Amino acid sequence: MKKNCPPDLVIVGSIGIDTIETPREKRVEILGGSVSYACAAASFFVKTGMVGVVGTDFPPEHRALWEEMGIDLAGLQTEEGKTFRWSGVYEENMDHRRTLLTDLNVFENFSPELPEAYRDAPYLFLGNIAPELQLHVLEQVHSPEFVLIDTMDLWINIAREKLVEVVGRCDMLTLNEHEARLFTGEHALMEAAEALLAMGPRFVLIKKGESGSMLFSKEGLFMLHAFPLADFKDPTGAGDTFAGGLMGALAESGRSGEKAIRRAMVYGSVTAAFGVEEFSLDRLAALDRAQIEARAERFKSMCRID
Amino acid sequence: MKKNCPPDLVIVGSIGIDTIETPREKRVEILGGSVSYACAAASFFVKTGMVGVVGTDFPPEHRALWEEMGIDLAGLQTEEGKTFRWSGVYEENMDHRRTLLTDLNVFENFSPELPEAYRDAPYLFLGNIAPELQLHVLEQVHSPEFVLIDTMDLWINIAREKLVEVVGRCDMLTLNEHEARLFTGEHALMEAAEALLAMGPRFVLIKKGESGSMLFSKEGLFMLHAFPLADFKDPTGAGDTFAGGLMGALAESGRSGEKAIRRAMVYGSVTAAFGVEEFSLDRLAALDRAQIEARAERFKSMCRID
Repeated sequence: MKKNCPPDLVIVGSIGIDTIETPREKRVEILGGSVSYACAAASFFVKTGMVGVVGTDFPPEHRALWEEMGIDLAGLQTEEGKTFRWSGVYEENMDHRRTLLTDLNVFENFSPELPEAYRDAPYLFLGNIAPELQLHVLEQVHSPEFVLIDTMDLWINIAREKLVEVVGRCDMLTLNEHEARLFTGEHALMEAAEALLAMGPRFVLIKKGESGSMLFSKEGLFMLHAFPLADFKDPTGAGDTFAGGLMGALAESGRSGEKAIRRAMVYGSVTAAFGVEEFSLDRLAALDRAQIEARAERFKSMCRID
Repeated sequence: MKKNCPPDLVIVGSIGIDTIETPREKRVEILGGSVSYACAAASFFVKTGMVGVVGTDFPPEHRALWEEMGIDLAGLQTEEGKTFRWSGVYEENMDHRRTLLTDLNVFENFSPELPEAYRDAPYLFLGNIAPELQLHVLEQVHSPEFVLIDTMDLWINIAREKLVEVVGRCDMLTLNEHEARLFTGEHALMEAAEALLAMGPRFVLIKKGESGSMLFSKEGLFMLHAFPLADFKDPTGAGDTFAGGLMGALAESGRSGEKAIRRAMVYGSVTAAFGVEEFSLDRLAALDRAQIEARAERFKSMCRID
């Protein structure tokens, strides 16, 4: 990338050092965070710029890994203090997790500031951070082509009004089925999606974990399965990897219509399926585009009717 | 259908008088049973012969409804006594049901006897009855083109050996995800399906309710969503309607390969989605082929990637 030339895609989110326990193993102090997973996934498709914050304790090898993956780090801030820590445990069958510890550390006072060049990026992914910080990012960018926003139950509960405001300024909202119900008060997903579309975004993408995802828009409904895996090691970051892969593939296509999003979702799903095969970015760091393409072809053949 | 000319499809199963309670309503003594739902669904596609038993108390209007739908009743037995009764209640969100009452009545001594003409039917669906009765049917037919077998947890628990024997003589096995795990001891569906294919059938179809279905074979995996419904009244018989619609559409195609089964599954799913919109056969009785085709087209467009 030339100096002062904007990345194709900018992603804002959290960076954490995670300690994760599954029924089979425990990993201590590994690289995590929504923007780490999302940028790693997007990096297979386009030049991706990361906006996030780490502490002065952040291990240099993590930064080196991102650089090896080609991620632009001009938007990465380093602040005096410790990096965000998160710890969780997955119960039997990995379909439920409990958070054991959340130490915000430098993330507590995070204010995302975009380097000048990032402000002209055509694609923007506002990862799951406080709605007022997401708004602060939107105020810095110059009319991006397509903005995706992610959120979580916490913000729906404590910052609903701000969240509604920022969602109304984005092209696409992504959340999981429980969050869609919580945000709208509608149990049926079709009705929840209608209520979310009424807030302003052109697209609503509801994630259903192992049951796949649903894309709602005025063009109708699209349903995509999750890529089926016989086994996986760690589902942490799967949603961020999915969204990052999706936005990377969409940015690469240069499009933002419903059909282009359908195709990009296939890449998001496949990239996420690779990601959960190992902890942290271990599998993504060893992945190449040819493996992604091969799995995407297999995946499409599993969904083909005619 | 000319006399002595075999039906295109023969279906064997239970016939019941059901009392069903959902969170919103209760219906007393309505027409139910696996073969009733399956034959009704199949009747939109081909000439379908029903094999089952009713008691002398069976209301003539139910028989008249089947006849109006064009179902061949030469294989329907009437025995002295009461018709099978079943009663169940669905809990909030309808994702779980409890059985309140099961009175086998004439079904207890049911022995399926096929009329001479039925023995040459090219397609056969062995609905969920005791494995030894399913074997008894297989012994009466003359080399059908394609045989589908359904089963349930009860037979896996009390007649496993007989069930393995009959499954090994069929082309396709259908069961739900819990039954697949129970039958094989494998939690992962991919591994459960491998174990079921090893019993002999060419195809294994695992039903996942609102999460759709998966078709396993040596040609690979096919995944189909459930047709999304904003609302439904009664899920009783949905699996039987799905399998009946599938077998009807497959018999109409005259084929039995993997691609033909994929297309037939779309019809099964769509027909089942109509069925649950009302209790009993109420919605299917008011349905026509054009409505099925229109919904099948919409459904395919929701699943299309390229």
